[in-house]
Amino acid sequence: MKISILTLFPEMFTIFDHSIIGRARQNNIVNLNLLNIRDYTLNKHRKVDDYPYGGGAGMVMAPQPIIDTIRHAKETNSGKVIFLGPRGKTFNQETAKKLSKEDNLIFLCGHYEGIDERVYKHIDMEISLGDFILTGGEMAAIPVIDSILRLIPGVLGKEESFMEESFSDGLLEYPQYTRPEAFQGDKVPDVLLSGHHENIRKWRRLQSLELTKERRPDLYKNIILTKEDVKILKSSNKK
Amino acid sequence: MKISILTLFPEMFTIFDHSIIGRARQNNIVNLNLLNIRDYTLNKHRKVDDYPYGGGAGMVMAPQPIIDTIRHAKETNSGKVIFLGPRGKTFNQETAKKLSKEDNLIFLCGHYEGIDERVYKHIDMEISLGDFILTGGEMAAIPVIDSILRLIPGVLGKEESFMEESFSDGLLEYPQYTRPEAFQGDKVPDVLLSGHHENIRKWRRLQSLELTKERRPDLYKNIILTKEDVKILKSSNKK
Repeated sequence: MKISILTLFPEMFTIFDHSIIGRARQNNIVNLNLLNIRDYTLNKHRKVDDYPYGGGAGMVMAPQPIIDTIRHAKETNSGKVIFLGPRGKTFNQETAKKLSKEDNLIFLCGHYEGIDERVYKHIDMEISLGDFILTGGEMAAIPVIDSILRLIPGVLGKEESFMEESFSDGLLEYPQYTRPEAFQGDKVPDVLLSGHHENIRKWRRLQSLELTKERRPDLYKNIILTKEDVKILKSSNKK
Repeated sequence: MKISILTLFPEMFTIFDHSIIGRARQNNIVNLNLLNIRDYTLNKHRKVDDYPYGGGAGMVMAPQPIIDTIRHAKETNSGKVIFLGPRGKTFNQETAKKLSKEDNLIFLCGHYEGIDERVYKHIDMEISLGDFILTGGEMAAIPVIDSILRLIPGVLGKEESFMEESFSDGLLEYPQYTRPEAFQGDKVPDVLLSGHHENIRKWRRLQSLELTKERRPDLYKNIILTKEDVKILKSSNKK
């Protein structure tokens, strides 16, 4: 996948030099292309923002540098232009999956108090990370890009690719334990040491169901329980 | 505020060397302290993870290195231990505000498929960034820390601190425009050039109300409309 990132702070994206995404870039599965919006200003002070019409505090990013950066990005990237902004649809795993199937994507990071409204006609999609305010779109672009890229075949190693299934059934993950068997008096649950695969599977399912019910009733209410789930929950209530 | 970040990838946090947070650090408003969990392993291969008990793909972060890193962090940081994980409460502006009032915070970033369940008794709070999967907790810690730090007095400059009010009334922001007045045939709305402050205020309020109603009905339904809001909406419908 080719990703072009349009930002005033390209140096922030060195985060993708490391770990899983860094390796995917080295293996040429992912190609990141950083464009500094400031390089596309036409004024001699390289100013990218100005005061808002109608007054008010804050500065607004001017249309010209952004639109020219988008145009330049499109010369080598045919992808959707995605703006990280507060008016967008809240990002989730479904959107991550959909976007992970694209060959090209362009991400636009805003800063200051917003972008000139006239830029929107050059934007195909707006994504919001959540209901909180950030210093800049870069802080949202990073997790959004990360969660898209990890879905591309070959990005995750075999040992890293497990969590997918767990989350995609709409349940929280069950508790995990690794060595040692006893740590500072805390022991691994017996069932996990039993070697009884069927019991382990049922125990994990029960944990996932109970954790989701307790912590995320909003997710739990959308889950369609299987006959086995009902049985597992019943037998746990009896204890 | 003092923030300690416990991670396997301290180099990822150079993102906070730049822009607004970088400046706040230079001004000693924010003190970031990075601890590499791998430095606290007691095994000679500096291994931080191991296979899960009970089988399954993926690796689990072992309890000892994490718990020892937490203990070390606590020697100089009395803050809450916050784990970025999928079972946490979804992060929002309210949580950001609450945490911005603390003097100390400790953030724990997990990686691989999860952390050993026995670490949880050393954790005070779990935060989820949203309903999507990331390659590591670092990708969530970055926007969470950013949105907390920008609320600390002195972190944002006067010109940057405007957006706050706009979001905190539960509405999306109104469209912003800056120079030039006409750009590629697109003109700034007349009202913003009128100099009539009262009309500008009402126009902006209407835009915020309409945008929120259209894009985020989930937010809109929780808004208590003022008498003036009702009047503004009515007069717009007449047109």
